[in-house]
Amino acid sequence: MYYSKLFGKTNKMKPSDADSANARLLLQGGFVSQMAAGIYTYLPLGLRVLDKIKQIVREEMNAIDGQEISIPMLSPKDPWVATGRWNSIDVLFKLEGAGKKEYALQCTAEDLITPLVKEQVTSYKDFPITLYQIQDKFRNEPRAKSGLLRGREFSMKDLYSFHLDQEGFAEYYERSKEAYLNVYKRCGLEAVIAKASGGDFTERFSHEFQVPAESGEDMIYTDKQTGDVLNKEVVDEADWENTDKYTIQKSIEVGNIFPLETRFSKAIDLKVQGADGQMKEVIMGSYGIGPSRVMGSIVEVHHDDAGIIWPEFVAPFLVQIVPVSWEDETQKTIAEQIYRALQAKGIEVLLDDRDKRPGEKFADADLLGMPYRVTVGRRAIEGFVELRPRSTGEIEELTVDQVIGRLS
Amino acid sequence: MYYSKLFGKTNKMKPSDADSANARLLLQGGFVSQMAAGIYTYLPLGLRVLDKIKQIVREEMNAIDGQEISIPMLSPKDPWVATGRWNSIDVLFKLEGAGKKEYALQCTAEDLITPLVKEQVTSYKDFPITLYQIQDKFRNEPRAKSGLLRGREFSMKDLYSFHLDQEGFAEYYERSKEAYLNVYKRCGLEAVIAKASGGDFTERFSHEFQVPAESGEDMIYTDKQTGDVLNKEVVDEADWENTDKYTIQKSIEVGNIFPLETRFSKAIDLKVQGADGQMKEVIMGSYGIGPSRVMGSIVEVHHDDAGIIWPEFVAPFLVQIVPVSWEDETQKTIAEQIYRALQAKGIEVLLDDRDKRPGEKFADADLLGMPYRVTVGRRAIEGFVELRPRSTGEIEELTVDQVIGRLS
Repeated sequence: MYYSKLFGKTNKMKPSDADSANARLLLQGGFVSQMAAGIYTYLPLGLRVLDKIKQIVREEMNAIDGQEISIPMLSPKDPWVATGRWNSIDVLFKLEGAGKKEYALQCTAEDLITPLVKEQVTSYKDFPITLYQIQDKFRNEPRAKSGLLRGREFSMKDLYSFHLDQEGFAEYYERSKEAYLNVYKRCGLEAVIAKASGGDFTERFSHEFQVPAESGEDMIYTDKQTGDVLNKEVVDEADWENTDKYTIQKSIEVGNIFPLETRFSKAIDLKVQGADGQMKEVIMGSYGIGPSRVMGSIVEVHHDDAGIIWPEFVAPFLVQIVPVSWEDETQKTIAEQIYRALQAKGIEVLLDDRDKRPGEKFADADLLGMPYRVTVGRRAIEGFVELRPRSTGEIEELTVDQVIGRLS
Repeated sequence: MYYSKLFGKTNKMKPSDADSANARLLLQGGFVSQMAAGIYTYLPLGLRVLDKIKQIVREEMNAIDGQEISIPMLSPKDPWVATGRWNSIDVLFKLEGAGKKEYALQCTAEDLITPLVKEQVTSYKDFPITLYQIQDKFRNEPRAKSGLLRGREFSMKDLYSFHLDQEGFAEYYERSKEAYLNVYKRCGLEAVIAKASGGDFTERFSHEFQVPAESGEDMIYTDKQTGDVLNKEVVDEADWENTDKYTIQKSIEVGNIFPLETRFSKAIDLKVQGADGQMKEVIMGSYGIGPSRVMGSIVEVHHDDAGIIWPEFVAPFLVQIVPVSWEDETQKTIAEQIYRALQAKGIEVLLDDRDKRPGEKFADADLLGMPYRVTVGRRAIEGFVELRPRSTGEIEELTVDQVIGRLS
């Protein structure tokens, strides 16, 4: 892609309303645009990142037998009444349509998927069932904040599993942990699994995936003896400042998994006749990752004063080519030669073809944060260009062939 | 995929609430499930079709320089007030959130994308701009009907173009027609372009893409002299039954493109300083295709009494393998051999591994409508199987190697 053609440009001004590194850098870099508090448009650069994260999530969910479906975001009132959550979920957006029909916007989907499974299954042989969807969810947040971390509309992958025995559930729950850790690893995040409360649904723990970060809103406690990681809510209140017992860190929650037991299958009367003729209760689990929140978290963890430092697999482009002078015919020719050679090898490249000062182009490249910058400067005429990984900043002088080889 | 593992099964009962072939067959085949009138869940089979249509649309939009973005579905009230459409769009879903904030759900996006372009552009050099998005739209329909053809939540690709001169707009508008025709062709639909009213925005015609079909709600008039195709609304009322002048056909509208002139750029005061220093008005066009409506239309056009007949590029699987008896070890072995061989070649295959009567499995294969059925029956032991294209029903006996070769 030629940078001059790309919709959404960098902006030197810090946005006044950015309360977090991810909001500030994604807005300044032209990845997103803010429509209202907690409501963002994804511009081409930002959508590329979001789609890559979604695809990583999709692959890992497919790997644990997840089947993708898509439940409408607009749902009628009835299913939420049946589970008792029409009034108990305080962030549920509600609306009224023609004919006084009442609707809710999906903020989670246990209430909608349990009746769906009840409608579709006919036999115990259909179990276990593992379904997921990736689309936007909505939360009527009194105060949206922290850029992509807490929005009113946000991308969410929610998977639900249905089992006829506790062993099957427990085994799948453990498999999901591995899949989740794979997702974060591929996204360049080092997540730890923290025990959290199971809430009203279960006496077991639920589990959160936490990425330690100074800007995090959560607090995780690592037991110095056992290595167990706990969410603050399950730490004895007397130990909340006990740094002898715990390593205490701020962190960002990037996902959670939850034993639902029979909370929703009971509410919807989802039961199945087993092989022995007895009616069996259905045991459920729910498993969530927010791709947009993951995107925001990546920026929180991977940035410096100059801008974003995208991990390779989620970067919108792997390489940004910066000719020092676009007016210089040699530089332009060599920049385009490298651009075409890399594209022919299927590598995603952004070419800064603007007629701007080098300092401005370098600053923009740092802000956008592609993993590699190729600088085509005055030694281009001798056949040399510079390769600069964004993460180290260490410049290496290479020939055109060498730089193409290195990036392929 | 093993059919027994697939979530969503066929249902012999005709659904009581299906008012159209697409609703009936997609529900019976387990492609979708109905949550409420005009609100459907896409089950794995249905989502595969929808995603393929979206990908075809995406490729054709990219081919005419479209850049993909994603505008939030939940939008604040202000932009709709600015364009005067908060009250004039009667199907706009409105809702109120925390702090008495008012929102609308996106049903179209001229009102939201025009301010976005105003925010992001700095120079006439940024033009022309061509942006699109593919996500769900919402319409507060008093009466939803016709399955996927007229829903309250539906998938929509909407592209918007921004130009500084009429010539550039006119040229792009013509290019978009070609791209649209490519989309329909790849989806197995023969669409014609019909002139329709430009509405309040322009004195020009807008253009609709219409697929002649007995079940269509629209009426198109083909001038017997000129070959011009017209929507009923632009035909002189005196000629509404004039079969001497026009060939009159029922049809389904599967897309439309629209000259917006300066209707929205004026409302939002989107102007740009041209190369000559003069402020220029921005001329816009909008271009819509509903992937879910295309999916419904494909079924309306491509089905028979036994079920759906998917065109190849949008079929959820290319091949359905039906062993006559899953209990028969030879048949099972050969079925699995063909399944693995085709999968290794990247071909999408559904294997009916159920222990059901052959008649039931054949009926299901016809209902589901994959382009090719491979029947593994009593001659499997001699190395022969049957290949049956869904569209012709003509059975051919082939060896295992031949059938693999034919489908690769």
